[in-house]
Amino acid sequence: MIEAVPNVSEGRDGAVVEDLAEALRSTSGVFLLNYSSDVDHNRSVFTYVADDSGPLFEATMRLFEIAVREIDLRRHQGAHPRVGAVDVTPFVPLRGSSMEECVALAKRVGQAVGERFAIPVYLYEEAATEDYRRPLPAIRSGGFEGFPEKILDPRWTPDFGPKLVHPRAGVSVIGARIPLIAFNVQLATDRMDVATKIARSVRTISGGLQFVRALPIMLAHRGIVQVSMNLLDYRLTPIHVAFERVQEEAARHGVDVLSSEIVGLVPEDALFDTAAASLRIENFQTNSVLEKRIARVVGRPLPE
Amino acid sequence: MIEAVPNVSEGRDGAVVEDLAEALRSTSGVFLLNYSSDVDHNRSVFTYVADDSGPLFEATMRLFEIAVREIDLRRHQGAHPRVGAVDVTPFVPLRGSSMEECVALAKRVGQAVGERFAIPVYLYEEAATEDYRRPLPAIRSGGFEGFPEKILDPRWTPDFGPKLVHPRAGVSVIGARIPLIAFNVQLATDRMDVATKIARSVRTISGGLQFVRALPIMLAHRGIVQVSMNLLDYRLTPIHVAFERVQEEAARHGVDVLSSEIVGLVPEDALFDTAAASLRIENFQTNSVLEKRIARVVGRPLPE
Repeated sequence: MIEAVPNVSEGRDGAVVEDLAEALRSTSGVFLLNYSSDVDHNRSVFTYVADDSGPLFEATMRLFEIAVREIDLRRHQGAHPRVGAVDVTPFVPLRGSSMEECVALAKRVGQAVGERFAIPVYLYEEAATEDYRRPLPAIRSGGFEGFPEKILDPRWTPDFGPKLVHPRAGVSVIGARIPLIAFNVQLATDRMDVATKIARSVRTISGGLQFVRALPIMLAHRGIVQVSMNLLDYRLTPIHVAFERVQEEAARHGVDVLSSEIVGLVPEDALFDTAAASLRIENFQTNSVLEKRIARVVGRPLPE
Repeated sequence: MIEAVPNVSEGRDGAVVEDLAEALRSTSGVFLLNYSSDVDHNRSVFTYVADDSGPLFEATMRLFEIAVREIDLRRHQGAHPRVGAVDVTPFVPLRGSSMEECVALAKRVGQAVGERFAIPVYLYEEAATEDYRRPLPAIRSGGFEGFPEKILDPRWTPDFGPKLVHPRAGVSVIGARIPLIAFNVQLATDRMDVATKIARSVRTISGGLQFVRALPIMLAHRGIVQVSMNLLDYRLTPIHVAFERVQEEAARHGVDVLSSEIVGLVPEDALFDTAAASLRIENFQTNSVLEKRIARVVGRPLPE
């Protein structure tokens, strides 16, 4: 099974989001697992799976078709950085599929998007063609508004599509990666300087935790700020470690943590590990979870 | 599917424990999910399931046969209270079965144990014949050593079997209940008075949390004490609430919590809830768990 998790630059117009969801849902062989929108980010995340590449290719092309038609980045405002209408599309190998399949799928989608929609495409993470193009933030720096200049730099020639930013849909980042957890922590303050300092002290690039990206984001509708994180390898840097680091840094500024949120879906073992850590369970194993044990020993899951 | 979780008064003789496990494992239609022994408690817990009552009846009778042959309570010493060789046997309805089936199974096993092994049997929890016999601690008070006198009290006439304590196997408590979590917290001290005070402040019967039983236990092999809990309804009093109460009370005595352990198996939603609470996730739903969502939407689980 392979998972696709495109992030689309529309989180306010419910009709467009529903059109996008319906295009995915109606593709034969594709299962739409989840989609969610954030008004402040002005961004939606779709999660869908299929047993093979074929249906995922088809569904993702349909998603692009609607996004290119309905979204105009020149009029898009949101708290989250973005370079494209379909900003970033990772393919993720779940059990039973390989990273190689996902890389091949990313390249196939990338080539088709470049040709069919005249959108410049950058391959990232495991699909990247050069090491400096692996990290999403490197590709995305400068944003949609900066890309007309960036694309002229020979280092930033697109992997597919024209060497010309699409006027309304920008550019698109497509790739393959292991599962990540999109984890945001809300703070009981509207001070962006505090969120910025916390994000810097938590993220890998400025000397914080390994495998963590973090950005400060203003949630204008709620009147608070957020530290928006990507946990790139939750087995090595678990969710609760990132949460506790944010909590500690917030305390240093006299700010309380209000709540957190997971965008999209979260692998169960990440939650089991968090529970085991917070309860300090000795020698915890997922084998101790009733439903996991039943599925393994009996060979079929408990009914819902 | 129905689950059986007998607690047997033998946690030191590995050969006997293996014999018991093998008897369960080799019963057709029965799946032995887990078993674990504690040397200090001198007690083992077996968890097995079957689709119907028949195989569970058969497996449980085999367990009794071996326990009655191999265990002599007159020579049994352990930190955990007990009244029988097979001390207590709950049957638990999992999804797809009812409490009524479990009550009927408990009565069927109880009658057979009384007749075949001449062991006095008390029905407890949902299978109890009188309200005052519902709670396990009420039946178990006085212990194996006190039962020859207790059994003469007309209020404690057994539900099945002779009105005479079995010389080696004692009496047996059999019943039906919703899933509970056996959750123990280890303290960084050998002071039983501290464990006793904490257990009293946490448990329902002395004014603590709802749906919690708690006992202080000396773990002689480790040189520390333990607060041993049964969480009788983890949806109403979650694991992390019990853990935090123990932590707070321990802090009051200047004692650190070392670790915790779950005896037997734990339902996954109990761990999801604990993770969500410790991360303060807004509006958490199990629908946000990747594997749960795949099983629901795709209609089949991810392969292991």
